[in-house]
Formats: sequence, C-alpha cells, structure tokens
Amino acid sequence: MKAEELAKKQKEISIAEFFEKNKHILGYSNPAKAVITCVKEAVDNSLDACEEAGILPDIFVKVDRVDRHYRIVIEDNGPGIIREQIPKVFGKLLYGSRFHAIRQSRGQQGIGISAAVLYAQLTTGKPAVVTSKTSPDSKAVRMEIFINTRKNEPEIVSEEEVEWLVARGTRIELEIAGSYVKERKQSVFEYLRETSVVNPHAKITFVDPDGEIHEFPRVSEELPPVPKEIKPHPHGIELGQLMAMLRYTKARDLRSFLKNEFVRVGDKTAEEVISRAGLSANVSPQEMGREEAVRLLQAFSETDFLPPPTDCLSPIGESLIMKSLMAEYKPEWVYAVTRKPKVHSGHPFLVEVGIAYGGEISEDRVTLLRYANKIPLLYQQGGCALTKAVESVNWKNYGLQQTRDELPSGRAVILVHLASTNIPYTSESKEAVAAIPEIIEEVRLALQEAGRRLREYLERKERLMKKKKKEDVLYKVLPLLARKVCEVLEKDEIDVDRIVARIVGNLHVEREVVEKDGMLDVTLRIFNFTKARRELKVYEMCSGSVEADNAKVSQSTYTTVSWDVLLNPGESIELKYTVKGRIVNRRPLVGGVDAELLSGAEPFGL
Amino acid sequence: MKAEELAKKQKEISIAEFFEKNKHILGYSNPAKAVITCVKEAVDNSLDACEEAGILPDIFVKVDRVDRHYRIVIEDNGPGIIREQIPKVFGKLLYGSRFHAIRQSRGQQGIGISAAVLYAQLTTGKPAVVTSKTSPDSKAVRMEIFINTRKNEPEIVSEEEVEWLVARGTRIELEIAGSYVKERKQSVFEYLRETSVVNPHAKITFVDPDGEIHEFPRVSEELPPVPKEIKPHPHGIELGQLMAMLRYTKARDLRSFLKNEFVRVGDKTAEEVISRAGLSANVSPQEMGREEAVRLLQAFSETDFLPPPTDCLSPIGESLIMKSLMAEYKPEWVYAVTRKPKVHSGHPFLVEVGIAYGGEISEDRVTLLRYANKIPLLYQQGGCALTKAVESVNWKNYGLQQTRDELPSGRAVILVHLASTNIPYTSESKEAVAAIPEIIEEVRLALQEAGRRLREYLERKERLMKKKKKEDVLYKVLPLLARKVCEVLEKDEIDVDRIVARIVGNLHVEREVVEKDGMLDVTLRIFNFTKARRELKVYEMCSGSVEADNAKVSQSTYTTVSWDVLLNPGESIELKYTVKGRIVNRRPLVGGVDAELLSGAEPFGL
Repeated sequence: MKAEELAKKQKEISIAEFFEKNKHILGYSNPAKAVITCVKEAVDNSLDACEEAGILPDIFVKVDRVDRHYRIVIEDNGPGIIREQIPKVFGKLLYGSRFHAIRQSRGQQGIGISAAVLYAQLTTGKPAVVTSKTSPDSKAVRMEIFINTRKNEPEIVSEEEVEWLVARGTRIELEIAGSYVKERKQSVFEYLRETSVVNPHAKITFVDPDGEIHEFPRVSEELPPVPKEIKPHPHGIELGQLMAMLRYTKARDLRSFLKNEFVRVGDKTAEEVISRAGLSANVSPQEMGREEAVRLLQAFSETDFLPPPTDCLSPIGESLIMKSLMAEYKPEWVYAVTRKPKVHSGHPFLVEVGIAYGGEISEDRVTLLRYANKIPLLYQQGGCALTKAVESVNWKNYGLQQTRDELPSGRAVILVHLASTNIPYTSESKEAVAAIPEIIEEVRLALQEAGRRLREYLERKERLMKKKKKEDVLYKVLPLLARKVCEVLEKDEIDVDRIVARIVGNLHVEREVVEKDGMLDVTLRIFNFTKARRELKVYEMCSGSVEADNAKVSQSTYTTVSWDVLLNPGESIELKYTVKGRIVNRRPLVGGVDAELLSGAEPFGL
Repeated sequence: MKAEELAKKQKEISIAEFFEKNKHILGYSNPAKAVITCVKEAVDNSLDACEEAGILPDIFVKVDRVDRHYRIVIEDNGPGIIREQIPKVFGKLLYGSRFHAIRQSRGQQGIGISAAVLYAQLTTGKPAVVTSKTSPDSKAVRMEIFINTRKNEPEIVSEEEVEWLVARGTRIELEIAGSYVKERKQSVFEYLRETSVVNPHAKITFVDPDGEIHEFPRVSEELPPVPKEIKPHPHGIELGQLMAMLRYTKARDLRSFLKNEFVRVGDKTAEEVISRAGLSANVSPQEMGREEAVRLLQAFSETDFLPPPTDCLSPIGESLIMKSLMAEYKPEWVYAVTRKPKVHSGHPFLVEVGIAYGGEISEDRVTLLRYANKIPLLYQQGGCALTKAVESVNWKNYGLQQTRDELPSGRAVILVHLASTNIPYTSESKEAVAAIPEIIEEVRLALQEAGRRLREYLERKERLMKKKKKEDVLYKVLPLLARKVCEVLEKDEIDVDRIVARIVGNLHVEREVVEKDGMLDVTLRIFNFTKARRELKVYEMCSGSVEADNAKVSQSTYTTVSWDVLLNPGESIELKYTVKGRIVNRRPLVGGVDAELLSGAEPFGL
C-alpha cells in the first residue's frame, strides 16, 4: 500500500465512538461493575450540585430489574438543570462545569454521566430519561436523550413539561445491561454506605432490586464549606499552558495579565517577576513569543509566592473521620490525621488518614478504605498510589504484622482520603490514583504519624496487661499468705489491698466509715503509689446533708462532694467529711488516672 | 448558587485540553517515562506503517540532550505521509487510520503520536518537526506543527520542501522535558530490545544521549503476513452499535445490510436470521426501530455463524518465540504455545506463551515478558490481566515455587503475547490489559499446556540425575569388587562396563577392534538394556577404504559407515566392518537415544 492509499483511511474519531469501543476504560468492564458505575456517576453529580447550591442533599437511588436489564433511577433535591443545558450535560462527553475550575469537586472530567447514558444506549438501545426542575414556581422538564456517537452530540428524542411535586431537583433514569450483586465489598450498597460515611450531611435512600429500603440518614445538619475556585498558581504551571494563557488572555499588558490570571500575584510580586524576566510591564501578552514565555517561567521559579490558598479544598476533618470509624467499626481505639495542604504540579492537595484498631474489628487482614474528593474508591486497589503508600510504610514499627511491601495484617481499618483540585486518576474510570511522588509521600507521613500513636496505644495496652496479670496473681496469693501469717502470730487478719497496690504501683483509695449518733464520719485515704505526679478529682455522692472541709459540695438529686487533689509519687492524703444520711456510690469516684492504675475506687470521667 | 448561575459555568472540553490536564493517563506521569513513551508511540507507528506498506522496516532512533531538555528523533523507511494528512496525523488527537479498522495493529486509538506532540509543546513550547517523503521522485515536506489545545486542531507553524536522500520515509523530531535512564528494566533501550525480539524483520538503530550506537539487526528477511481487515461478526455486537449501523448503512434492504456489513453472513445465513427475527428481507434498515433491532440481535444470538476469520491477526508464532527466548536468555529448555483464536465481545484475539527454563537464567524470581500486538508492555505489571493470569496458575503443579496468587519463583522466563483486533487496555497509555475473563482464561490454558511440558522436562531431568548418581556409584564400586573377586579366584580382570549398563538400564555399545594384515576387523556390539524399543542410527567415521555388510557407506572427507538398528528391550546385535586405514571417532556415534541413557558411545544428532 502506498501513502495515497493509506491516506484514504485516515479519519477523525469522535470521543463518543472512542469510549463506545473502550468502555472498560470508563468502568464498564463487567456487568456488575456497570451498575455500580452508573449509580456512582449520578450520585457524585448530585452531591456536587447540592454542595455548590448550598442545599443539604437528599438523594434517592433505586435499582430494579426490567426484563433482562436493570433500571437505575437517581433523584436529588439539588438546584436542577436549566432546559437548555440538559441535552449537553447528559448527551455529550467532555462537557461540564468542573473541568476548567480549580477547586475540589467530585466530578472533574465532564465524562461520567454522559458515559453512563452512552453505556445505556449501547447495551439496551434505550435513551436516558432526565427530569429537572429549577424553581418551585415552574413546571419540570422531562427529556429523553440519545448520544449521536459519530458526532458526540445529544439528540433529543422527546421533550415535555410535567408536574413534579418537589421544589427543585434532577432525576435521571437509565436502563442498562448489567448484573446486581449484594453483600460484597464491591456493590451499590457498599458504595453508598462508604459515601454516606464521609458525607454525613447527606441523606441517601436506596431501594434495591428486592424492594428492600436502605436508609443512610443525615447525621449532620451542617453543610461542609463550599470549596472556593482559585486561579492557577505561578509555581507548577507549564510552559505550554503559560503560552496558551498569554495568547487567550483578555489582559492588555503583562502586569495586569499576571495580576488577573494568577493567584498570589499582587502589584509587588508582579513587578518583581517582570523585572527578573527582563520584560516590560506594558508589553501585550499576545505579542509575547516562546522566548519571552520561557523567561517569564524562569522568573516565576526564582520568585517566592505565598502557597496557593487552601479554601479550594474541603477535607473530611479529623473528628469526622474518627467519629465515622467509631460508628462503623466499633474499635477500641481510633486516631485521625489531616495534613496541611501541599502542591503537586500546581494542584493543591491534602491528605487525611484514619486508623481504627481492635474492638469489634476481627479481620486478619487490614481493611483499607480509599477516598478521593470524598468519593469511595472500590476498584483497582492494587494499582492505586494510595495503596502503594500504605504498603510502603514499615508497619512492624507500629505494632502490626506485615510481609514486606504488602498491606499489613492485624485487627485494623485504615482510611486514606486524598482531596485535590485535580485528582490524578489513572484512567477516566476514576478508580485509582496515579503514582505521583508528592502524594505518596504525604500519605506516608500521615500514616507514620497515626502509626506512632497506634504504637503508643499498643505499648501502653501491653504494659497495663502485664501489670494486671501481676496484680491478679498478687491478689490471689497475698491474702492466703497473710491469713497464714496471722494464724501463726495469732493476730487479726490484715487487709492486703494497700500492700498489693503498693507493689503494683497503683493509685490506691481506701474509705473508712464510722457511724456515730446517726451520722457517718467518712475518711478517704489516697495513696499515690504510681511513678507520676497525679492531679485528681475525687467525688462522693450522698443523699442527705453533708459537712466537709476543703471540699466542694453541690446539691442536685444527690449531694456531690468533690476534692481537687495533687499527689506526688509516694505521697498520700486524708479527706474527711460527715454525712447525715447515706453514701450512694459503692466506692469513691476518681478522675485523672487510668482505670488500670486505680484500685479501691471507681474510675470517673475522661 | 441557582441553576441559572451554575449553567453559565457549563462548557465544552476539548480532548486536547483534557489530556493536557491528565497527561499521566497517556503515560506522561514522570520524566523518565515521558521519554520512553514518546519513543514508543513513534516506533509503534513506524512499524505499523511499514507493515501495511509491505516494507521491511529500517528504524532510526536518537535521543540526545539539548539544553535542559531531550530531543527525540525517529526516522523510518515507511511509505511516508502525504502532505495533506501530516497536520492532522500529528496535530489532532483522536485522528487515525486504525481505529475503525477491525484487524490487529499496534496503534488503535489515534491518540499516541499527537499526545507526544502535545507533551512536547506543553513542556518545552516547541513544535513537532515532521519530515515526510512519499515517492523517490518527489521532494520531502518538512512541517512544524503545534496543537491548538482549545480546538484540538493542528496549527502549521512553518512548511517547506526539502531534499531528503531516501526513497520514502517519515521523520519526527520532538523536544520534551524528561529524563533519560539506561540499564533498567524500564528504559528506551529495553523497550527497543524487547520490540526487536518479536519483530525480527525490523532493523532498529538507536543512538543514546552518550552518542553510543546500539544496533538491533534484522534477523529475518521475511515480512510477517499483513493482518487483513474484517467486518464485525454478528456475535458480540451490541444493540447500540447495531442500531447505529442500521442508521448509517448504505444498504437499501435488510438482506444486503446483513451480507455487506458483517463477516460470515451469506445468502443462506441472512435468510435464516431474517426469518428467525420475523422481519422482511426488503425492509429498509434506516426504517427499523429499536424493537426490530432487538429482534435482529436476538436472531443473531440464536444463529450459528462460522467464527470470525483469523487472518486479521498476526501471531508471533511458536518457533519464533522459542528462538527469541533461546537467543536472549540461553536457557537449557524452552517451549511455546500459540492458541487458536477466540472472540471477546466480538473482537477476535489469540494468546501465545513461551517458557524458558534453566541454563543461564539465574534469577530467583521469574521474569515476565508481556506483549500486546507485538508491543512490549513495560509498566503496570501489577495491574495487568496478563500478570493476573500468570499468577492464577498453580505453578507448584509444574515444578516452580509459588506463594499463592503471586508470580512464581524459579529459574524461568515467561513470555505472554496477546494479539487482538482490539486490545482492551486499561487506559490510553496502553500499559496494561483490562481483566476480560475470556482473555485470562486463554492465557491460563496456554500456560498450563506449557507448564505440563515444563513439568515433564523437570521430572525427566530429576529421574536422569538420580540414575546418573546411581551409575556413578556403580562405576566406582563395581571395578573394585571385580578386582577383589578376580584376585581371590585368580582370574583375569573383567570389564564391568556392560554389567553397569545392564544394572542402570542403558543402551550400551562396545567396539572390538582386531588388527590383521594392516586391516582392522571391527565388531560393534549393541545391547538394549533400556525398557523401550529403540530405533537407532549408528555411525562410524573412518579414513581409508571400508567394507561392510548391511551398512550404508558414504564418502566425503571421511568415510562414514552407518546402520539403522531396531532393538527391542533386552535384545542385542553385532555389526561388523573392515577398514583399511584408521577409525576417526574415538567411540561409536549413536543417534535416537538420550545422552543420559547411552554408555560406550557418543550421542549424535537431535
């Protein structure tokens, strides 16, 4: 074949044709995954839209069988989409509002939902049915949409105005070839559950194909702050991008170009950059060639700018991560770290991790929960940089088992969240994060910090367990010994508690009560046998009237007597009070010392 | 924000902008990989073009440093590209000749080379320089090309006619930010080496940044048969595709639509499908709706068609795989399997594997070589279905060590090649194959077949080693015993070789030579102590004249005497000849029995 013949075969390929042929790249590589991916794309969009419009999301998801296919319905109470935009939003790939914006959002490619529409029409030949209402006073629009794959343009099959008894919202209905799996790590239920965990302000209702209703309730009434859109930062911009910006800017001169098109560039830094680049502030950006752009970029790299603002990011937050892990896994210990924002090739990002340990977590292998911009990642764990980062940590240092460069094993759950204005997914299916060194490093640092806390906890637990064992033995043996000794010496039996407490190093409390004329004279003796100085709160609860020196007495249902006590190691103190009535608590209540270090009293408070 | 405000942010995204922001998806996730990816895209294109034009490829690759960047030059002797096509081929993403064709080729997306151009302009602001010549009689065209990322359209920076002293060819020059690594599994050198291994008809010359020249010579003058383009097969087509085909076909009626647009549909099968679908042969395809398309698809699935023709595929071939593995790794044993073609969602594919074992292979861990349409896959081994398939085989059955579901360990190299009209890559970077069950199954079957051969080899080796040990002991002990016995009985010493041969079960040969009147009377005695019937070739080489009954005597530099001998287990035979001169070979030469089973003679031939 000659060049002329070969030339005849050259042809433009529409992005819709491309993805029709390569649908596995978008997450449609098997029937079970197809159902999950469709739900995911629609729910992510709903959450983004509600967040942008400042609405607490209320999302309804339904999957049911229709003939040999599945019908998927997702309905939200978001702002709705105006009639003119509906066809393109759902019927054109690479169309959207979030691609060009520099701020954290779930959607960032303008591909997801139209890919779901494409998959539906490819497998069942059915159009997507979209209903949308943008104001309580107007009617809703209902549209059936196909994608013309050769042109990557929407085709409206039908359009009508309908009554819809909601204030606002969007509803999409898709019919696809797929299969539905339940009770598996990779399932619609699991995706929604994990989504709900990190989006406590969302209410999600899921009706599964058996008609069973699963509610993921709204746990917080507070909307997370909406991430702010920012301009690009001068560090991390590439030459080609800079040249395109210079060409398309509306700015008339270089100074205003720098000030208007970049974040963290003010009058002073603009002057600094311009003089460093040896350019004129008045030159027209459009007239600058490659050489000038190179000099400008070089000047950027030599200039200090403030790091990009971080209100373009929306972390989950340490307290919410801990709360969620507590609620979902009921561990005995939990810890979370939110790192400070960093930048990779100009994109601000931050990393959060959480570790839950023990309690009801029984699995041998550590469960890893991966999130990117608050979306749970269910697939391709092995090919994801977040996993690699977890594997690269030496977990033996932190008390977990590990075969080198694999996930650790032990009774733990590890959560990793990457928030960024641009998540570097390995493919359009948004299942795994690419191996960007800066991101891996941040995840490692966060995990190491949490890991150190885990080790501390495990070491303390180990120490206390050893101590407890020793104590148990002493409590068994000493009384026997004491009784024998007393028998031989013909003495009264002695109380061994204080002796044991001294040996094992406890904070020990004794209460002596003497009844006299219907009054109780109470003496508390507190011995600090531990090795640390202790600040204690000591409480007694009585019914009746109380007299006490140096104590705070407060009255509600019961009378509470409390003391603030400071004891150095080896010190002891006596506290006295008189009560006309009775003592309610079986043993004195003591706060400020771990339960494991306390004897003769009940631990109290945090 | 309200729907109206949100609508203002909706915007079309060009595919060039999309990949500019997500360049890691295309294989540009780090500087070292960027250099390799650029080379790979250009070389793959050159190989495809030469193959299509029936030209033995002669490819020149040069990478050198220019300031802080790398300049990459790839030049081929292919058919060239006509002037009109150059801008779009190199300056527009999703443009190409191989996307719409159903046949095996390296390129299939129309993205690769323009993505390299995009990366160059993004990182260095330099246009791609393309030179092309399509006929020995014309001049060459030299063009500098940029991509307008907002429109995804080429921009010609300069264009001129130049002299180029080649008959035909294409040359591309890119300047990119990157870094060059050598002597690593993932390097330009390694990519070219592995490419050369499975493309023995190509000559590749590589000049590295140090100016060192690496030649990968042409080993075969034979062009592999050009894969033929086919139409889609009725099995494996999806409803949406069928509906689009019905809409856009030039056929006037359903019968000709079926016959013209599909492979393996003739008059008879077309009638069968039409009647099964309850449709009319004369209906116009354009007038058929979704319902009719559903019935047609249903009828397809109920009809038997011949499987798709397989000349759209171009396997490497068992003998070439074995030859390459032999040459590259110098193993002691090698085996290869080319499976019959199969189909996944309508795409014909076939799988080939090769295993090399022992010899100079010393690594502990098995080396895995992955190929897709003759392109070596260097990255993302962990995320690739070909790797998963290798891991899923129980290698312990086949004599290799393995931790469950991991790559086996042992002194082996495993090669896997997937050939298909549509390789399901996990992303546009074409680094890993998606987990399509049919493909994984075929790889498993091929590996199991080769694995069984490996086990047989290892078992035989083990058996022979044991036998050899036994034999060694006997050869040491028996003569001593014999000498003792002879001493005691005062007899002459006896030759123990035949006795040992009988005990260990060898094919044993003795040569007795008696000199008489300057003539040698030679008697060969052959004993079959093995357990199998043996067809042997026995040779003697003499200088001088030979007389022999029942033997073939041939004369060249030496006189060769040869016998065909058939011996059942336990049988023996005597062969006699007379030579006037001398015997050249130290011991008789015997073919048709393994060296390990032969004593008293030299093994000969295969």
